[in-house]
Amino acid sequence: MEMKVIAHIRSDFPTKFGIPHQSGRIQELKADIIFEPEYRNHEAFRGLEEYTHIWLIWEFSQAVRKEWSPTVRPPRLGGNVRMGVFATRSPFRPNPIGLSSVRLESVEFSEKYGPVLHVSGADLMDGTPIYDIKPYLAYVDSHPEAAGGFTDQIQDHKLKVEFPEELLKKIPVEKREALLAVLANDPRPGYQTVSYTHLRAHETGRNLVCRLLLEKKKKKKKKTKRKKNK
Amino acid sequence: MEMKVIAHIRSDFPTKFGIPHQSGRIQELKADIIFEPEYRNHEAFRGLEEYTHIWLIWEFSQAVRKEWSPTVRPPRLGGNVRMGVFATRSPFRPNPIGLSSVRLESVEFSEKYGPVLHVSGADLMDGTPIYDIKPYLAYVDSHPEAAGGFTDQIQDHKLKVEFPEELLKKIPVEKREALLAVLANDPRPGYQTVSYTHLRAHETGRNLVCRLLLEKKKKKKKKTKRKKNK
Repeated sequence: MEMKVIAHIRSDFPTKFGIPHQSGRIQELKADIIFEPEYRNHEAFRGLEEYTHIWLIWEFSQAVRKEWSPTVRPPRLGGNVRMGVFATRSPFRPNPIGLSSVRLESVEFSEKYGPVLHVSGADLMDGTPIYDIKPYLAYVDSHPEAAGGFTDQIQDHKLKVEFPEELLKKIPVEKREALLAVLANDPRPGYQTVSYTHLRAHETGRNLVCRLLLEKKKKKKKKTKRKKNK
Repeated sequence: MEMKVIAHIRSDFPTKFGIPHQSGRIQELKADIIFEPEYRNHEAFRGLEEYTHIWLIWEFSQAVRKEWSPTVRPPRLGGNVRMGVFATRSPFRPNPIGLSSVRLESVEFSEKYGPVLHVSGADLMDGTPIYDIKPYLAYVDSHPEAAGGFTDQIQDHKLKVEFPEELLKKIPVEKREALLAVLANDPRPGYQTVSYTHLRAHETGRNLVCRLLLEKKKKKKKKTKRKKNK
């Protein structure tokens, strides 16, 4: 089946670094969905503004591999445990399709781009191609009772962020909240076995640097972990 | 983007008739997912059995049209009101991708077909091609508070089904419950303005016939309805 790109997302993530592993984790993150000229038809969006949430079906465009692998190592498991690819939301799947529910903040009809969807909570890299937009229907899509396999057991790891006022002023006002939330979410790929608890922003020359700090928790023994997961 | 078929569903719906308009509406409906030989790898499903729900990403293979239309007439609105295609789950969309969450009953490793997923609540026609299987993650996919546009206002319409015992005996035991549920769900396309309240099964010669019966409710004035929706 050949799929046509209908839109692209415009987000604040130029690279994969820092993108939350799932959608909806950081509601402060705002993004725009800009449609391809063929789909800039107001009629196609009639009624969409009544929904609070929508589905995005998109392509892991930066994660395409020639061969699919039956197992992957989910970052939430520390990157050392292999799981079946269909038991994960990993990008490295036979068809690199991503599925994300995001909050629909508003539908704008701009002169330049036609219909633009303003969304929050998106986990998509800037420029990600989108293939479908669907309304989120709570009566069929919501299963709060669904059990979640390995993801159920993993505790959320949040960093305490220290960001001096004078440095925060260098960030555009409307981006500050999202930046702090992304930092608190621990933007590292998640393969590290060292659990930091703290993050401090400071300046080195012209660069704004964020340093991770250990507090209380200590480095785990790597060898033991590896053995376990073999 | 070119997508490869990874599996097909085996369900009790040889045609579109009677298929519930959304997944999960009729939990009694059982179906099997059979993978293409390339994906019959046990490892690829490691950990999936721990999930109670999964996502299916599939193709509306019987609903492909050359041109996309910006508006569609959802059957739940009686087929007379036009909505933007992106505000509906209609099959007639730029990319005919379907999205359904189903209950994962079990994962079987069969000698003949390799891994087979037994699911319930599927709204897919027999033979529908599937492009991806993902675990349902309640912490990101479930939004019970999501507001649902026009679908919120529509009341569920259930028929009272009368199915004489001697006729029901002609249906395989394991299919009876699902058949009754599909009939109660009103299998008609939904474009009719006459609201039936009752359905009775009987036999004519060799055929098992289901007849819809009116009870209390009367035919609405068609002209008034049409005017309204223009």
